Amino acid sequence: MRSRGVSIMSLMTGDQFLTSLKELDHRVFIQGEKIPNVAEHPISKPPAMAMAETYCQAEQEDQKPLFTATSHLTGDTINRFTHIQHSVEDLVKKILMLRKMGRETACCFQRCASLDCINAVYTITHELDQAHATAYHGRFVDFLKYIQSNDLVPAACMTDTKGDRSLSPSQQTDKDQYLHIVEENKGGILVRGAKLHITGAVNSHELIVVPTRALSAEDKDYAVAFAIPADTRGVTFIYGRQPSDTRRLEQRQTDVGNLFYGGCEAMVVFDDVIVPDERIFMKGEYPVAGRLVELFAANHRASYGGCKVGVGDVLIGATAAIADVQGTASASHVKDKIAEMIHLNETLHAGALASAGRGYRTASGAYAVDPLLANVCKLNVTRFPFEISRLAQDIAGGLLVTMPSIEDRDNPQVGAYIRKYLTGNSDAGSEKRMRLLRLIENITLGTGAVSYLTESIHGAGSPQAQKIMITRLAQLESAKSYAFKLCGIH
Amino acid sequence: MRSRGVSIMSLMTGDQFLTSLKELDHRVFIQGEKIPNVAEHPISKPPAMAMAETYCQAEQEDQKPLFTATSHLTGDTINRFTHIQHSVEDLVKKILMLRKMGRETACCFQRCASLDCINAVYTITHELDQAHATAYHGRFVDFLKYIQSNDLVPAACMTDTKGDRSLSPSQQTDKDQYLHIVEENKGGILVRGAKLHITGAVNSHELIVVPTRALSAEDKDYAVAFAIPADTRGVTFIYGRQPSDTRRLEQRQTDVGNLFYGGCEAMVVFDDVIVPDERIFMKGEYPVAGRLVELFAANHRASYGGCKVGVGDVLIGATAAIADVQGTASASHVKDKIAEMIHLNETLHAGALASAGRGYRTASGAYAVDPLLANVCKLNVTRFPFEISRLAQDIAGGLLVTMPSIEDRDNPQVGAYIRKYLTGNSDAGSEKRMRLLRLIENITLGTGAVSYLTESIHGAGSPQAQKIMITRLAQLESAKSYAFKLCGIH
Amino acid sequence: MRSRGVSIMSLMTGDQFLTSLKELDHRVFIQGEKIPNVAEHPISKPPAMAMAETYCQAEQEDQKPLFTATSHLTGDTINRFTHIQHSVEDLVKKILMLRKMGRETACCFQRCASLDCINAVYTITHELDQAHATAYHGRFVDFLKYIQSNDLVPAACMTDTKGDRSLSPSQQTDKDQYLHIVEENKGGILVRGAKLHITGAVNSHELIVVPTRALSAEDKDYAVAFAIPADTRGVTFIYGRQPSDTRRLEQRQTDVGNLFYGGCEAMVVFDDVIVPDERIFMKGEYPVAGRLVELFAANHRASYGGCKVGVGDVLIGATAAIADVQGTASASHVKDKIAEMIHLNETLHAGALASAGRGYRTASGAYAVDPLLANVCKLNVTRFPFEISRLAQDIAGGLLVTMPSIEDRDNPQVGAYIRKYLTGNSDAGSEKRMRLLRLIENITLGTGAVSYLTESIHGAGSPQAQKIMITRLAQLESAKSYAFKLCGIH
Amino acid sequence: MRSRGVSIMSLMTGDQFLTSLKELDHRVFIQGEKIPNVAEHPISKPPAMAMAETYCQAEQEDQKPLFTATSHLTGDTINRFTHIQHSVEDLVKKILMLRKMGRETACCFQRCASLDCINAVYTITHELDQAHATAYHGRFVDFLKYIQSNDLVPAACMTDTKGDRSLSPSQQTDKDQYLHIVEENKGGILVRGAKLHITGAVNSHELIVVPTRALSAEDKDYAVAFAIPADTRGVTFIYGRQPSDTRRLEQRQTDVGNLFYGGCEAMVVFDDVIVPDERIFMKGEYPVAGRLVELFAANHRASYGGCKVGVGDVLIGATAAIADVQGTASASHVKDKIAEMIHLNETLHAGALASAGRGYRTASGAYAVDPLLANVCKLNVTRFPFEISRLAQDIAGGLLVTMPSIEDRDNPQVGAYIRKYLTGNSDAGSEKRMRLLRLIENITLGTGAVSYLTESIHGAGSPQAQKIMITRLAQLESAKSYAFKLCGIH
Repeated sequence: MRSRGVSIMSLMTGDQFLTSLKELDHRVFIQGEKIPNVAEHPISKPPAMAMAETYCQAEQEDQKPLFTATSHLTGDTINRFTHIQHSVEDLVKKILMLRKMGRETACCFQRCASLDCINAVYTITHELDQAHATAYHGRFVDFLKYIQSNDLVPAACMTDTKGDRSLSPSQQTDKDQYLHIVEENKGGILVRGAKLHITGAVNSHELIVVPTRALSAEDKDYAVAFAIPADTRGVTFIYGRQPSDTRRLEQRQTDVGNLFYGGCEAMVVFDDVIVPDERIFMKGEYPVAGRLVELFAANHRASYGGCKVGVGDVLIGATAAIADVQGTASASHVKDKIAEMIHLNETLHAGALASAGRGYRTASGAYAVDPLLANVCKLNVTRFPFEISRLAQDIAGGLLVTMPSIEDRDNPQVGAYIRKYLTGNSDAGSEKRMRLLRLIENITLGTGAVSYLTESIHGAGSPQAQKIMITRLAQLESAKSYAFKLCGIH
Repeated sequence: MRSRGVSIMSLMTGDQFLTSLKELDHRVFIQGEKIPNVAEHPISKPPAMAMAETYCQAEQEDQKPLFTATSHLTGDTINRFTHIQHSVEDLVKKILMLRKMGRETACCFQRCASLDCINAVYTITHELDQAHATAYHGRFVDFLKYIQSNDLVPAACMTDTKGDRSLSPSQQTDKDQYLHIVEENKGGILVRGAKLHITGAVNSHELIVVPTRALSAEDKDYAVAFAIPADTRGVTFIYGRQPSDTRRLEQRQTDVGNLFYGGCEAMVVFDDVIVPDERIFMKGEYPVAGRLVELFAANHRASYGGCKVGVGDVLIGATAAIADVQGTASASHVKDKIAEMIHLNETLHAGALASAGRGYRTASGAYAVDPLLANVCKLNVTRFPFEISRLAQDIAGGLLVTMPSIEDRDNPQVGAYIRKYLTGNSDAGSEKRMRLLRLIENITLGTGAVSYLTESIHGAGSPQAQKIMITRLAQLESAKSYAFKLCGIH
Repeated sequence: MRSRGVSIMSLMTGDQFLTSLKELDHRVFIQGEKIPNVAEHPISKPPAMAMAETYCQAEQEDQKPLFTATSHLTGDTINRFTHIQHSVEDLVKKILMLRKMGRETACCFQRCASLDCINAVYTITHELDQAHATAYHGRFVDFLKYIQSNDLVPAACMTDTKGDRSLSPSQQTDKDQYLHIVEENKGGILVRGAKLHITGAVNSHELIVVPTRALSAEDKDYAVAFAIPADTRGVTFIYGRQPSDTRRLEQRQTDVGNLFYGGCEAMVVFDDVIVPDERIFMKGEYPVAGRLVELFAANHRASYGGCKVGVGDVLIGATAAIADVQGTASASHVKDKIAEMIHLNETLHAGALASAGRGYRTASGAYAVDPLLANVCKLNVTRFPFEISRLAQDIAGGLLVTMPSIEDRDNPQVGAYIRKYLTGNSDAGSEKRMRLLRLIENITLGTGAVSYLTESIHGAGSPQAQKIMITRLAQLESAKSYAFKLCGIH
Repeated sequence: MRSRGVSIMSLMTGDQFLTSLKELDHRVFIQGEKIPNVAEHPISKPPAMAMAETYCQAEQEDQKPLFTATSHLTGDTINRFTHIQHSVEDLVKKILMLRKMGRETACCFQRCASLDCINAVYTITHELDQAHATAYHGRFVDFLKYIQSNDLVPAACMTDTKGDRSLSPSQQTDKDQYLHIVEENKGGILVRGAKLHITGAVNSHELIVVPTRALSAEDKDYAVAFAIPADTRGVTFIYGRQPSDTRRLEQRQTDVGNLFYGGCEAMVVFDDVIVPDERIFMKGEYPVAGRLVELFAANHRASYGGCKVGVGDVLIGATAAIADVQGTASASHVKDKIAEMIHLNETLHAGALASAGRGYRTASGAYAVDPLLANVCKLNVTRFPFEISRLAQDIAGGLLVTMPSIEDRDNPQVGAYIRKYLTGNSDAGSEKRMRLLRLIENITLGTGAVSYLTESIHGAGSPQAQKIMITRLAQLESAKSYAFKLCGIH
């Protein structure tokens, strides 16, 4: 495989990352147009900046304990987003790092899916080799060293398009509704399919592809995992739309709410893409697909108790600040609602921290979170951000959705009216108020809501997936036995 | 007062209404630009169309029982949106009419605030005259006949800008933070101030202005109610932004979600506006301001159990349809969630129907809803639409926020991919799926969410206002006495 | 059939009712002992008193508009608990009457199941006769006249024991797990089976038996409805236990909480009971069984938005009073919680009122509630009382479950301590506080909780039954069509 | 101080504990009667057995890692319930131990309050000595060694009777409404007052008394902490009543639900009790009272995410088992509800584990939990058990509150009916079903509900106390600064 056009280093800077994006020659389409550089297009720039922030934070001295780690492969200092966790402390630090990123960006910064994916594939390839005397783990370690040494982002590509959901992959009329091996050649395979909702795909150097569900023998061709450069021939990225996305196209962009950052998802099409042997990490070992999914999912479900909590912090902060500006901060119902917002937000965090704290060592040496608690964490994430948003909107007041453009403040005909009448009791005038409201709008109704609300439901698996896992992982028979003992049933 | 440029008739058609808008010479600013015709500007056209639908429905034979009524003033058949309710049946029909409108438009159609306002002012002016031998009621009846006969929309302008909320109107540093009488002249008064969040203001022929809160003697100048034509000199409308509003500016507009309708709010500035005596309905009678607010609020809070329920119907329908298209309709958790959505939606409706069913006759002859039940209805409206939206997004799946533009289906480079991979198990192909998802996006994250979510919190008064009224209206002392009796306390 | 030993009258007094119970010669077992008179046994006396209260209220002049009605059969003034509703006003008055009873007794007063049942059987027998030229309706009218004229209670016996729930009645190993016709004789039938959870059974003069579910052709023998006197040979009542039931056996009974009233349920066994032809209202017409259940259920589900709301009033009153006594009434969080309790309680009421307000005329002339809204009402009843109870306990404080017996106040050794230290800031001393707490304990954790909590879940059908009906009754296809129109799907 | 009549040993057995109770000569009153031995009176025996279980578990080899620890004072192996936690692992193990105890007993086993209290007092006395050169810590260490070496239970006595809650201790009319120093003598002090809700007080060897709130200079006499033997002259225990408590007095006790265990609270009166100097741990240092309360509260609030979760396990187990017995276990709504119960239960646990995992070292060397997360944990505990109970009752069915006594199964007249008709589809017959239902009744409506529901609200501080702490401990200013940065406010 050809290496990225970045010089070998263990820690990239934010600027270097943006440069590296420019050098990627991938096919990205935004609303029908192929764009030359994701970091420069106004729609896709904020997501690139959010990803870049994962590099910037690691540059800052006081954040290094959180954002860097020591590679167990090379002993080098690496960005924690490329690290295989080897202790409970590692698991906890990941959660704290994600919360910090959420606070800094108030959006999906897109780099945790790959982190959670490489940790799962690392473990699974080790188990595969133990069971089947295959050589996947070594290949993956090589790939991982490359990622760590160059501080790259490998997007995790999991969710297939699924076609008719009542049918298994091999039963579909259109076989491509799940990504699969089309043919095997000497030295590699040819794959076809499409992966949906790929977070940060367009900001990634590599793509790691894994199956999206448990598979049976008939689905053998769908049991495939591999990694390829993002600009491999045959790969196309179709960028997803978001609410209010085109505010970024407005001249002054003052109404975007979140001035710097955003998340992004893309549909990634693999149209007869060639994968060389050295980048294949699973090929036909269908029985292990389900476990790979669960391992990845558990790690990733815990992550949501980090990043979304950080976004929650920003929303709580903005809400407390708007109450200050509007003169309602001392009302008892406002104080009660803010306390409730904090409570819900910290309950999400507690789930992630607990799943990390009760983490365990896998055979590969990598640590994984407690899966029951990780699923519990995520199931709360599918609920509480909606209530936190509702409370934020309650405190923000109706102006949140009825106020003019911030730019109108400078308009010769109506600006004076807006400045006079939207001042509230703020010394800072109407601008502070309007900016805070736009930020709350962004997180609860705009581009930020994609990540904070909808993605909180579906990212890392939909609620029902968590419910199923929770029942499976709970020790119901043991619970019954306690009950039997106490009421005298033998 | 000059009359509108429409011919005298009791029922306007939708087209006539749109024409009448064109003939209005009011100052409307959208993102800093004065626009010539709200019904033609792409941003404000859908709201005009929603308002027009209140006329169109009344044209339809099968809807006439719901959308028309017999004026108690003239005996003419009038649009029910201009009717003073004179029976419980009237109160119930209003709720049913609003639900029907919600179903037809899936947005705020903006005409119920004026309906609820005229019913309140009708009652209050009658009481004022009884108490103070004033002549307000006769004036208001004249105004009302004009509205009914010409089938006009008089926007209800209530919420002031409030400045520092810890201070009363007269205590504000800037006295204009509540609209007030600046000077009295022979034949009229001069008023100044601004009203926020005025629903449908730009689609209205007249403006009815009323106080926003209970007032004390010091606030006498703020106790003012009146009506003026929307294009009166000194009145300026500054149009509010909404999430995804500018999708309407896109060439093909396929991504707007709701193809036809929308709601709108504006900030309405009254910059030294002259009001002639015959249009003044309250001038200085401060003790009655609180009761006017409560009466209007009760009527309007009940309305939310009509219109939002209709929007809920559309969201539930879209969600059930997307489950069909995506092949999940028979999953037990999906069925359970849809049942829950219906349950919550109907609970909202029950509150409105109950408050209407327990309505009472005021001294003026007009009927008013039961205020306790109306407040209970509205407090549920501040909560359930968020949960209904969350469930809708749960069933819709992540594609809701990651899918490309619908237009991309026709793109030569990526269209084939989208058509192939987003088909689901639908015979109808990807288009049906994408259209439904865009509609769900509109209602839960786009322009529709303004009305369905945020306005559900704040419209007709914020939750805390309802909580206060609920406690005040409940018979707590009576409840205590039942308790005392049962536990033997004398 | 032999008539009851009460003189013919249209309205019985409470005392006459208690006397009539004494004259019943039915087999009632409480904790293994056959008891001679339910109205005198300390365990079953409060339930008898609660039932008697349905008679006492009808004696009171100011309650007559609510508690009496004019029989459409005889034109006589009858107790509304025996009335066939013939208007929306009747439906509403029933709800208001039940709320009043809930306030008076704070428990299940047991007479609404029979009311709702006779209304359903009245309608169904009419329909049966229309369809099958049978003579059931006339028989039932005769029975009803007897009930109305003598002001009797006919307990509604519906829920069968069900055996293995995955099997239909006729598939059960033990055929008696659903009550059925064992043999038909000249002049009557012989039935066998048992009915569970029969509210007020032991305080009833008659038993009306109806099927518990929809039935198919194989289950023909289970499609049987009839009425018999409560002391018919072969009928046995086994009284159900309740939390804290034996506090009524304590000498001074001061800790019972609710000093006068209680609810009761019994298992009613029919061991080869003979039913004469003139009392049979259905015999083998299995297709109508499902509709009978639904009609009864809808009426009864609406009832819960009356009686439980009345109990809620008492709990709210007791909670507000304990806040007074303990000096916390002015704390903002306490006020907020009481407002929330009222809000939830009134939401339940709104459901019932709405279902009554939207009631409709059946072919028989009897009115039935709107079934969708009735199911919505009941589904909320399965939830909100738990939250209301939680809030009541929150405000009540821990003393609710840690305080000594009220009797200990008079104890020579510890009484002085209790009186001194449990006074709170009450002038009334510790007694008022303790009595209120015992009442709250009764409703949320004692005999009253049976009715207020558990019965709120299961009475009139469990939550899942409501969910199924809600989906079935909602117009989902119509909702889809509104959505299709708005997003351009044809 | 006189030592307990138990031989010196590091680990007492359960039997030895029960013997030690017998040897206590304390004044305990149950319903007005002074009882000779709490472990033998049928009402108080189950609570004694629950406490004894904390000893029994420590005897079991496989539980020793959880139930024992190494004293940092003596190096001896001690019962973990007497241990000062010195690591995050200690904090976590405490939570796991409490969950295990909850599973074993399904009630409040009463020994964690003292554990959490000694950890707080240990820290505070250290800080007091550092600040004021007092000698409290040494005294407390001596006391602690005595407790650890003899494996004793020192009940934590905190909550005062409070009188008029709007007044501070020194402002009360009756000064004794908060426990206080009446006079100081050479060698000791005389104290008076009463402590409410003292969990396990009657099963304790010693009483540790601490203030219940923050205090000011005027309240100096109320700033007192000390320990005395439970049978000190002047101390009286008045036992609290519980729902269904007297079922334990029934001959066969088959209806108690939880056959072996229960919790108990008592009001503890201190009527001029002498405390010797060597047992005084605070005397007048009022500024530290608030911190002592917060430290104790944080530890104890986290504990609730252990013990209540264990009780939740039993309730979930009983519910899953009753679904098996009644043939509903495979219904999708039942599976969904059980998953929800588990989810809520584990969310509580996650809060406790997270607060332990983020624990910190105090100056004394003792570790304390993260207070924000501990408060978050507890606030969820005030809510979720009610929902878990509601779901349990939903699945249990109405029979939960309508079934006869289990003893009636053996009754010659009705036993056959019960056995026949309550069998369900269980091979085990009706007994298993009835026993499980009685256990669910116990936990949700009986003696167990005291601990699982009401105590979950108020134990370790009521919900409002948690809300206040949550806001105080959250970093709102920091959250605002993140928001400001993102929306461009400088």
